[in-house]
Formats: sequence, C-alpha cells, structure tokens
Amino acid sequence: MKVGILGGGQLGRMLALAGYPLGFRFRFLDPAADAPAGHLAELVVAPYDDPAGLERFAAGLDVATYEFENVPAAAAAYLTDHVVVFPPRRALEVGQDRLAEKECFRSLGIPTSPFRAVDDLEGLRRAVEELGLPAVLKTRRLGYDGKGQYVLREPADIDRAWEAIGGVPLLLEGFVAFDRELSILAVRGRDGATAFYPLVENRHEEGILRLTTAPAPGLDPALQRAAETLAGRVLAEFDYVGVLAIELFQRGDELLANELAPRVHNSGHWTIEGAETSQFENHLRAICGLPLGATAPRGHVAMINLIGTIPDAAAVLAIPGAHLHLYGKAPRPRRKVGHVTVLADDPETLRRRVEAVIALL
Amino acid sequence: MKVGILGGGQLGRMLALAGYPLGFRFRFLDPAADAPAGHLAELVVAPYDDPAGLERFAAGLDVATYEFENVPAAAAAYLTDHVVVFPPRRALEVGQDRLAEKECFRSLGIPTSPFRAVDDLEGLRRAVEELGLPAVLKTRRLGYDGKGQYVLREPADIDRAWEAIGGVPLLLEGFVAFDRELSILAVRGRDGATAFYPLVENRHEEGILRLTTAPAPGLDPALQRAAETLAGRVLAEFDYVGVLAIELFQRGDELLANELAPRVHNSGHWTIEGAETSQFENHLRAICGLPLGATAPRGHVAMINLIGTIPDAAAVLAIPGAHLHLYGKAPRPRRKVGHVTVLADDPETLRRRVEAVIALL
Repeated sequence: MKVGILGGGQLGRMLALAGYPLGFRFRFLDPAADAPAGHLAELVVAPYDDPAGLERFAAGLDVATYEFENVPAAAAAYLTDHVVVFPPRRALEVGQDRLAEKECFRSLGIPTSPFRAVDDLEGLRRAVEELGLPAVLKTRRLGYDGKGQYVLREPADIDRAWEAIGGVPLLLEGFVAFDRELSILAVRGRDGATAFYPLVENRHEEGILRLTTAPAPGLDPALQRAAETLAGRVLAEFDYVGVLAIELFQRGDELLANELAPRVHNSGHWTIEGAETSQFENHLRAICGLPLGATAPRGHVAMINLIGTIPDAAAVLAIPGAHLHLYGKAPRPRRKVGHVTVLADDPETLRRRVEAVIALL
Repeated sequence: MKVGILGGGQLGRMLALAGYPLGFRFRFLDPAADAPAGHLAELVVAPYDDPAGLERFAAGLDVATYEFENVPAAAAAYLTDHVVVFPPRRALEVGQDRLAEKECFRSLGIPTSPFRAVDDLEGLRRAVEELGLPAVLKTRRLGYDGKGQYVLREPADIDRAWEAIGGVPLLLEGFVAFDRELSILAVRGRDGATAFYPLVENRHEEGILRLTTAPAPGLDPALQRAAETLAGRVLAEFDYVGVLAIELFQRGDELLANELAPRVHNSGHWTIEGAETSQFENHLRAICGLPLGATAPRGHVAMINLIGTIPDAAAVLAIPGAHLHLYGKAPRPRRKVGHVTVLADDPETLRRRVEAVIALL
C-alpha cells in the first residue's frame, strides 16, 4: 500500500512513523525541501498547485490524504480525479472556511457561539451591534495558531480590527463565557464504523495550543456521550473517512462547537503513547480500509507542545513517564518544534510530572 | 544526532522508527538495495567489508551501532577507528563465537550447558564420549535461526553431523533437560546505569523464534533477580553500552546461559507496545548518552513472529489488543517478514488472543 500525504510537516511525519509498521510506503508533497517528513520518506518538493509536482506525487499511489486543511482547490481537484483521496473533499472545503464550519454545525443542530459573516466595514459595524462586545473578528480562511484573529473589546476596536485583518471575507464571533476548551477526535472507517477518543482539555497561549490533558479532568460520561453524538453527526454528514477533530467550548454541561479539522490534530498527539491506538495509526487504518483500533486511554496523559525552543533531551527523558517527540525542525519563535507526552497512573502524579516538564521550557 | 546502523534489516528499521521521535537522523549500510530500513532512511548499498562503502557510511556520524553480531572484523576495525561505536567491539567479537560466549559465561560464574570445542572428527568423537548423547553440534560462527546446527542422537550421527557442518570450528553442547527457554534484555547507558526488562518465555519451531510471552508466565521474582544479576555481570565485563540479550534455559530454579546477542533482539519486539520504553528506544538512548527509560511491562504481552507468509492485515487488526508490524520484506520460506504483538490485562485473555492470531497464520 503506497500512501501519499499532502504536506510534509510533523503531522505527516507522525503519520508515516505510525504507518511503516503496517507495511505501508509513503510519498509526501511539500514546497519545502527540508520538510520534516522528508527525513523518513520520499518527498516531492513542489508548490501544492504545481501540476507537474502533483502528477509526480500522485503517480502510483493507492490512496492519498493530507495533513492540513488549506489544500488549494486546484490540488484537491487534481487529486480526486487521479487517486482515491480521504477524507472527502467536502469536509476539506468546509474545514477551510470558518463560516462554512459554523453553518455546518448549525445545520446539524450543534450549538456554536453566535456569529455573523462580515464582508465590509459596514457589515462589521452591524455585526458588532447585533452580537455586542467583546467579540472576535476572524478571517474565514487560512487562520491557524491564533493568526488572522482580532479581539474587539470596545467600539474603537472596530476600525482597528478592520485595518488589521479586513479586506478578505471575515466572521465575527460573539463572546462566549465558556468554562474550558475541549476537543474530541473521531475516526470513521471506509465501512462506516466509528470510534471516538475521550474528550481532552486544551490550554492555549497566544492562540497556540500549549497543553492537552487526556481524558479532560473530571470528565462527565454524559458530556463524553454528547460529544460523541455531535461528532458522529459531522462524520455522517460528510460520509467521512479518517480522523476528524472538533474543537469545543464547555459551558456548564453544554458543548459549543468552535472549529473542525478534517485531519489528525495537535490535541491528539497524546494518543501515540497514551492510547491503545494512536490517532495517526487510526487515520491510516481508516483511509486504507482496515478495521479501526481501540481508542481507550492508558491512564492519565498530558501533551505539552514545544514551541520555539527545544529543551535538553536528557532532562526531559529523566522525568518518569515522559516521552519526547522532536520534529526535526529548526527552532524559531512561535514554531512548534516538538512535544512531550507524559503518562501517569493518577492525576496528581501527572500534574507533578507536567510541572517538571514545563520547568524545563 | 546522526546515527549510523550497520545492517538495514527489520531491527535497524525498528531502531529508526524509535529514534526519529528523539530527533535523530539515520544512515544504514547494507549490501541489499531493498533492505527494509532503506524505505525510511538514507541507505548506503555496499558489502560490509567494502572500504569505500564504509567510508561513505561513517562520514559525519555522531555514533554508530549494528543490528547483527556478524559484523566482519575489518568493518568493525574501520568503524572504531573513525567513529564512536556502541556496543563495544569485544562484545561483538564474543557474540560472534559460540565458544567464546560459553567461555565468557563460565569465567563470570554463569552456568551453561556442558560444552567442548571441536576442530576435527577425532575431536568430535572425543567430545561425544565426554558429554554423551544426545548432544548438539554447532558451528562456532555465523549460526542463526537454527542454521549451522546438527542434533546427534546416536553414535552413527557423528559422521553424518561432521559431513553436514564439519570443516569449520565447531562446538558440541551436551543435552540439558531444561523446562523452558527464557531470555532477558538488559541495557546499560554510557554512564553505567543499567535497566532490565522482565524475563520472557520463548518458543522456537525449527530453530526459529515463534512466540515470546512477556513477562514469562509464572515468573518468580527470585528468578528475575538471578537473571538480572547474571546479565549485570556480562554488562560490566564488557563495559557495555546499549541493549544486550541473553538466551537462557530454565531448569527448576536454575538458569543456564545459552547465547548472548550484543544488540536489540527478536525476543524484545514485544516492548514496542508492551513496555513503557521499547528496546529500540532504550538502545538509542544508551548509545547516545541519554537517560534510560522505564522497562516495566504494560500488562500481559505476547509477540508472534510472522514467518514466510503475511496474514490478512484486516483480520489481524480486528483482534482486540493486536498490533501488526510488517518489515517491508518479500515473503520467502523461513523468512521473518513481520510480527504481531498482543496485549491483554490477564493471562487467559492473552492466551485467547494469541490463539486467534495463530489461527490466521
């Protein structure tokens, strides 16, 4: 089985590491010659919308997938014409557009924060009137890790926000006083079988995921069921195949859907050591038509992102239960260069070990 | 950190898979262009004793290691002159020679089966007189997976055995009525720290390992301590760095050492999912000067070798607790093409799952 992956970043790299034991071969397409996945698989270096590059990439693949949702429409069209591609293209298209995401959630009866599409300054004023302040203005496309967002706290911020990120299709989201950020990873096989990982709690700093705790502390089984129900609806809506991540806000016993990612997700990295089957292996099993693996967690798990700098490896590995994952990327400010997974048998031990890791950063 | 590995088979491949998350890069040397490790790392294709190949292999490495003990002396000499190599060369030399192994064990006060060196037919007759029959005649060098062995049951077998494998330095081993075959994996860091995996039970068929159960069923803590003590002596003797495997016979509460392998070992494949830190990661941690990882098992674990044929992947993965490992090798009779690891919370569940895997072979 030869698997093609669009994007050779750390997600692609971890997909390949999970897939080699299944006997798969991998080919990546990435514009960067030093893409992390290129260290351990065939890499076609070309822009994503380069026809010759796409042709070389697609030749002889049994199945193709992607590690990021901002796949150019032309690339997606070429691939779906030439090779079996999962997840399905419509999930990709919805996942590229924050407005389409929100409308998709609404159409499936899944609560979201209040939102308005914003196409011009006049529309932004109107949206602020309707939703009130504070609110967050976001670009509909190409936002990630807090990029393409502007928080409005007072009326004077309207012009500032427009100046900062206006001129492209936007979305204004009303403020939600949520308790915490959660996410759920769901996976659906070619045969329609589904599996769900436990809800995890995510902490962000400056818009970048810093810490995931799995399962989410104090997780109520009813909340897990609710999350699986809503994720199941999204999977069914797209006739989805592969891993899907949904970011959620918890407000009391209510879940509001925030974003979906039609791919493996940073908040699922804990599954490599922390679950019976990792998100990466389950994504590959799904798109290759193999049975899904068990998603049960192994005790209490945390994932700490390494952002901008790489700590001393020996110091990390000396912490009991700690597992180091480096992506082979040169450190730069705000760049995810690795993560540390920490396992423990109880929440208190986990907390101490996480603190020991964070003290090294 | 750039790690060079002599030998690009499945052991090397699994070393690389364990090492990429630590941020390491890998280069392999193997005479076969289709060596399994070449799918996922740089591969220098050359005979092991080819000076130009060795030079290309060694250039710029931070550390080198090997995945098999029959490294030609010239290759070992070149490497130790040009790069840091672990495990140490003397362990390699002893591991290449069944007689030196046995003498090493004896010199460390570690019991073995009775043995005699055999250099000619006359010597074989004398050895049979001294040790009695049955006995096993083995080549001192280059034996593996039951190759280079001949079982003598009656006096007439003496000439037959000599005809079959005579003409090279040999070893006659007296018969030992052992209860079962065990092995222990030990690891020692550059700083002298040691760690030991639990004793495992191994079942062979036609000289090839078929099934490893970890920990060995009914493992007595006193037996584990005895095994750690004897393995610790071998580690200290060689000022060893890396993973070392020792094959043992259990007879009552006594352990007899049979062979040592100065490398990661087939009877340790269960550690990938079945232990907190795999033998592959611990070998790399050791040779790279990083702290050793925890060796505790995760419940009850079995490893079933896939020999000669590859079962249906979907059927294997549908078995709860089963993890598939394929090596990217074309199936051939008696060739190890992969393994399946099975995890369970109790021995009875493990037994049922192992039977389900074996039914697919």
